[in-house]
Amino acid sequence: MSETILEFFESEVFGDREKEAFPLISQIDDPADLKQFRLDQLEMICREVRHFIIQTLTRTGGHLSSNLGTVELATALHYVFNFKEDRVVWDVGHQAYPHKILTGRRSQFGTLRQYKGISGFLKRDESEYDHFGAGHASTSISAALGMAAARDLKGQNHHVMAVIGDGAMTGGMAFEALNQLGYLKKKVIVILNDNDMSISPNVGAMSGYLNQIISGQFYTRTREQVEKSLKMIPGIGDKIARRAGQIEHVVKTMLVPGSLFQELGYHYVGPLNGHHVESLVKTLQAAKEVDGPVLVHVRTVKGKGFGLAEKHNETYHGVGVGYLPKTCTVEPVGAPAKKASAPSYTKVFSQTMLRLAKTDPDIVGITAAMPSGTGLDAFGKAFPDRYFDVGIAEQHAVTFAAGLATCGKKPVAAIYSTFLQRAYDQVIHDVCIQDLDVTFAMDRGGLVGADGPTHHGVFDIAYLRVIPNLVVMAPSDENELQHMLNTAIQHKGPIALRYPRGNGVGVVMDEELQTLPIGKGRILRQGQDILLVGYGPMVYTLLKAADQLAEEDISATVLDARFVKPLDLDLVLANLPANRCVLTLEDGCRQGGFGSALLEALQDAGQFDVRVVRMGIDDAFVTHGDVKLLYKEQGMDVEAVLQKVQAILAP
Amino acid sequence: MSETILEFFESEVFGDREKEAFPLISQIDDPADLKQFRLDQLEMICREVRHFIIQTLTRTGGHLSSNLGTVELATALHYVFNFKEDRVVWDVGHQAYPHKILTGRRSQFGTLRQYKGISGFLKRDESEYDHFGAGHASTSISAALGMAAARDLKGQNHHVMAVIGDGAMTGGMAFEALNQLGYLKKKVIVILNDNDMSISPNVGAMSGYLNQIISGQFYTRTREQVEKSLKMIPGIGDKIARRAGQIEHVVKTMLVPGSLFQELGYHYVGPLNGHHVESLVKTLQAAKEVDGPVLVHVRTVKGKGFGLAEKHNETYHGVGVGYLPKTCTVEPVGAPAKKASAPSYTKVFSQTMLRLAKTDPDIVGITAAMPSGTGLDAFGKAFPDRYFDVGIAEQHAVTFAAGLATCGKKPVAAIYSTFLQRAYDQVIHDVCIQDLDVTFAMDRGGLVGADGPTHHGVFDIAYLRVIPNLVVMAPSDENELQHMLNTAIQHKGPIALRYPRGNGVGVVMDEELQTLPIGKGRILRQGQDILLVGYGPMVYTLLKAADQLAEEDISATVLDARFVKPLDLDLVLANLPANRCVLTLEDGCRQGGFGSALLEALQDAGQFDVRVVRMGIDDAFVTHGDVKLLYKEQGMDVEAVLQKVQAILAP
Repeated sequence: MSETILEFFESEVFGDREKEAFPLISQIDDPADLKQFRLDQLEMICREVRHFIIQTLTRTGGHLSSNLGTVELATALHYVFNFKEDRVVWDVGHQAYPHKILTGRRSQFGTLRQYKGISGFLKRDESEYDHFGAGHASTSISAALGMAAARDLKGQNHHVMAVIGDGAMTGGMAFEALNQLGYLKKKVIVILNDNDMSISPNVGAMSGYLNQIISGQFYTRTREQVEKSLKMIPGIGDKIARRAGQIEHVVKTMLVPGSLFQELGYHYVGPLNGHHVESLVKTLQAAKEVDGPVLVHVRTVKGKGFGLAEKHNETYHGVGVGYLPKTCTVEPVGAPAKKASAPSYTKVFSQTMLRLAKTDPDIVGITAAMPSGTGLDAFGKAFPDRYFDVGIAEQHAVTFAAGLATCGKKPVAAIYSTFLQRAYDQVIHDVCIQDLDVTFAMDRGGLVGADGPTHHGVFDIAYLRVIPNLVVMAPSDENELQHMLNTAIQHKGPIALRYPRGNGVGVVMDEELQTLPIGKGRILRQGQDILLVGYGPMVYTLLKAADQLAEEDISATVLDARFVKPLDLDLVLANLPANRCVLTLEDGCRQGGFGSALLEALQDAGQFDVRVVRMGIDDAFVTHGDVKLLYKEQGMDVEAVLQKVQAILAP
Repeated sequence: MSETILEFFESEVFGDREKEAFPLISQIDDPADLKQFRLDQLEMICREVRHFIIQTLTRTGGHLSSNLGTVELATALHYVFNFKEDRVVWDVGHQAYPHKILTGRRSQFGTLRQYKGISGFLKRDESEYDHFGAGHASTSISAALGMAAARDLKGQNHHVMAVIGDGAMTGGMAFEALNQLGYLKKKVIVILNDNDMSISPNVGAMSGYLNQIISGQFYTRTREQVEKSLKMIPGIGDKIARRAGQIEHVVKTMLVPGSLFQELGYHYVGPLNGHHVESLVKTLQAAKEVDGPVLVHVRTVKGKGFGLAEKHNETYHGVGVGYLPKTCTVEPVGAPAKKASAPSYTKVFSQTMLRLAKTDPDIVGITAAMPSGTGLDAFGKAFPDRYFDVGIAEQHAVTFAAGLATCGKKPVAAIYSTFLQRAYDQVIHDVCIQDLDVTFAMDRGGLVGADGPTHHGVFDIAYLRVIPNLVVMAPSDENELQHMLNTAIQHKGPIALRYPRGNGVGVVMDEELQTLPIGKGRILRQGQDILLVGYGPMVYTLLKAADQLAEEDISATVLDARFVKPLDLDLVLANLPANRCVLTLEDGCRQGGFGSALLEALQDAGQFDVRVVRMGIDDAFVTHGDVKLLYKEQGMDVEAVLQKVQAILAP
């Protein structure tokens, strides 16, 4: 794209050409403004919102396709309801850009997902219209039901709704909430935003069921069933069979689609075309009047309007479809090119899985709806029989792995650090108590950047290292990652490894895979004045600091701990400098993390005179923004290490 | 009951009268022995198993009613299948006593739930027939699906089944697994053991649906629907209407109950009388032949045969119904009478909730299917509108609480320590990131006794104290508990308190509720030689130790930390003895726990010369057994404290 077109975009979205490019939405600074428009103007408003999102995201990056899918839905919701009183919970929240644009955040939209800019998810302290924040899926119905219960206790009568994708519906807690809502019969509108995709194509029987409804197979199947049954009644069947249209009628009267939801106590409405804003408005107006729980089944298309826009709207000239990838997250235009030399950790995991699986038929790969995010997709293509995408269902994923392990398989559950929090009990109760041979491969350890606090993987070191039987380790670079994955496969028993989002260090990859000794660290650099111990990729921050310290004639020993459990205390003790000072650094929370484990080990060994200074993430949720910036703000960059060392060594 | 009858029981169950009292099951030392009997003998075998369970439990205690409900089912399963090859996963595992009795553990049954005796749950290292252990609900279908996937990968063709209660079905992970199983269409038999009770009466729309099937309402409703629809066809409707029996036929052909499961891809069979062992055998034999997933809906009665047995079997003379309570867990005959003077922590929680709720209408109580276990039942009776039993659904419970809190309510989520592991992500993601005003009241903190490793609440201190915004505290006695609950309600923001199973210390209860200052501990005893810091009820172990130390002229300061987060470092520093030695004791894991938090705080404050000795639970899963015995074995009793102190003070 030429600089000129980018500048043109920017002037439209954020500059003086806004009123011209967006004549309608430039008038909307609050949802109340939206209500001033006629129903037949909404389609044009939706067109503008969609256009606005596409143009902004070329600059900011963000979740493109999920948000293009909800333009009409958000518009209709704000047209029909009054969210100063009514409540809406957007599941996951990455489908809520249109909502943000319509609720007074249009002018800030260029700061999306940037440090101190607006969040890519909903955030209660960002807007009075963000009633509930979320970054993980399947929470919306629970939260909405809580709001509805509070409303009823207070004797209020506003509306409460949850907007949930069909992918998020595979999460068990969504079912838990549906189950209770159907039982309590509270007035809640559940809007099922069905695009037949979670982040990757959806799996599960529920998804198949929804597809049947949408495709009309449900009618066909039922009609055939009725026809067959009626024919069995002598003297009646024939007559009916001749009146095919009437059987159709019987079926439609008798069996609406969505019987599954009806069995659970829901008034089912749908399926609706989620891109026809006028019918959405009318349906939502009708849904308002229903007592008790309503399920509105809305069919949307992820990325809706992006391909079309290209053909029909000249503004899009120059933005080829190939330019903005169709995947869920797009990178901003201004982002620096990634170094081709250093593969991402995800990629190294992906390739090592493939490599190991070729010679070990017992390896099974499991993902919870994150095949490409975890890099397990390549394994899935090569070994479809040994690959299981369980849907957004981390709890099930882990116990499913446990079941496989009881039969001698070697399951690798590839689950992001924060998502494994969903399966904490299953890791303890199903895998570790039974000492089963399951590997947890945790991507997105440490700070992840633009996704912010719901996705920063900062607690896993602390919450995993307290579990008996579990081995817990972290590679310091991509070469270590391949060895650790191999080590995990060779190890009998539960084992977890975690690695960060983003690219590796660019080290040389060993050709042969090693099996690392469990619980042994390694020495990377030897010195006399201070001992620096790193866990995970922060080891390289320590190495850089050691280089700079050397210039000041301070010589540091740098250890790569590799394991937090079991922890290599012997290595630490053997490398203590005369001053017996140790500095630890890890990309996890300081509370309960690696440094804390070292403190404990020293104390248990009676080594009371060793001084440990722990560096890690503070006891506060970390905002979104560029990872380097965030680590700097956390006092975890090379500069901060140097300062700490100087403070330690100060007389 | 007279001593004589007890002795009589014992001689029947474990002594020389066994063959006489149990002529059939005394011949069954392996499931293969069961297969030697004729089908018509199974009913008598079931009668013996039931009798055996009732008699044994008068001695051992244990889960009575859930196990009386599965006698016929377990017998039929072992008659039809060969579990040397076939696989069965019993959900929760506390319904598996009949399975244990039939799989060679009859003679050990008297050691049930006792230290070094057989476990009350399934345990893989206890028997080759225990294919998967569990103590928490809703895991069985996931594990079974894992086993089925392994079977198919290996090209084996044995059977795999899960036995799951209708209560456990409300747990989201059961749905996650059902959803994937229905999609993968693997050959798995899911046996829904429907007794319309989880531990307390079941809630949720799914339960209502199952009830409709069982009561026949489903047929009635559907028949009326069909009749109405057909009548609308001119010229046909009348004729059909006159043939009511044929409509019945149409409906039965067309719509079997269980359509909800059928929509998800299951072959539904049922509902079956779960106490008619011969039909169970025949149905299971048929289910074997079905390809793909089968759901067998079995209707059982909890406690089946206990009341009847009393009437029909003279052996039961002397055992009044009032004697063995109908509740889930029965106490052994030989158990010492509880001191009436010290109420249980559960009871104090229960009463304080009531008291607080009377003056604060914003308090809402939430339980996940544990109303009496948590003591929230009293609150539920007094304030039914403000009480929510969400079913076995901890994830939903926590986010539901978060939703309530966004609307100004003060939800108290009463969830056992180990069960809150199920909702770890929701505590972080929905409550703490958003800094919402939710109270977590965690019963069963520390070792719980007979339930063993799945229920010992030993990780919560570690896994909660790393979460930003959360206040984490533990009362040292029942009086502290009432103040802490009040403090939690007064505090704005997320706060967790945990307390043990069993009776309080017997302290005087203050009449007025206090609001404790957040993050401040208290001094219980002052001395010069050593500082003892306790967290939770172990404080009393320290006080007893201090008494004994005083006899040896060692004077100890004893602090009750009250809070692990924020931790009262000032109080510790202000009370350091000259030797700067501190001993900590807590009823949680030593890794990452309170002692570890103190180490961190000291290090952060630059107090490198303080010596901390941490006492707590070792890094291994703790077996079942008497709590006092287990703490002794863990080196956490008064004696162990004295030894540690002497070691610290040794020159």
